[in-house]
Amino acid sequence: MPLYLDIHKNVEGARAQAVADAHMRDLQTQDQYRVKYLKYWLDEESGHIFCLVEAPSKEAAERVHREAHGLVADEIHEVREYS
Amino acid sequence: MPLYLDIHKNVEGARAQAVADAHMRDLQTQDQYRVKYLKYWLDEESGHIFCLVEAPSKEAAERVHREAHGLVADEIHEVREYS
Repeated sequence: MPLYLDIHKNVEGARAQAVADAHMRDLQTQDQYRVKYLKYWLDEESGHIFCLVEAPSKEAAERVHREAHGLVADEIHEVREYS
Repeated sequence: MPLYLDIHKNVEGARAQAVADAHMRDLQTQDQYRVKYLKYWLDEESGHIFCLVEAPSKEAAERVHREAHGLVADEIHEVREYS
């Protein structure tokens, strides 16, 4: 399954609890689209959020965000992970 | 230890092997600065690289990249990780 990293930039009110609530909605919405939001990283100072997600397509990942809470990412990158 | 996610944008020649070589140099350089590059994600198509790194400061993380291979990030965000 392709892996994507998306970036939400300068999100106003990106506090930990608000973002956790939005993420919970992603988890409740994703199964019907075979999408799996895996992790996210939050920079509260700048309001940047980075989501790591497995999805059949970029559009499927975006659709989950749109339906779950409407906050779609500014960028989405298909990536491979290395460590 | 603070956690950072950095972004290298539109890097020319960002092929998997070249990035793996640069990452190896980070690993060889990082200990003296108490920095730990943990993972990275590569979008070969756009040439974006995202590095996840534990470091005592943003400057320490950047210094490792600079000394190891000279390819410093365009942005670095202090983040918290959630899953």
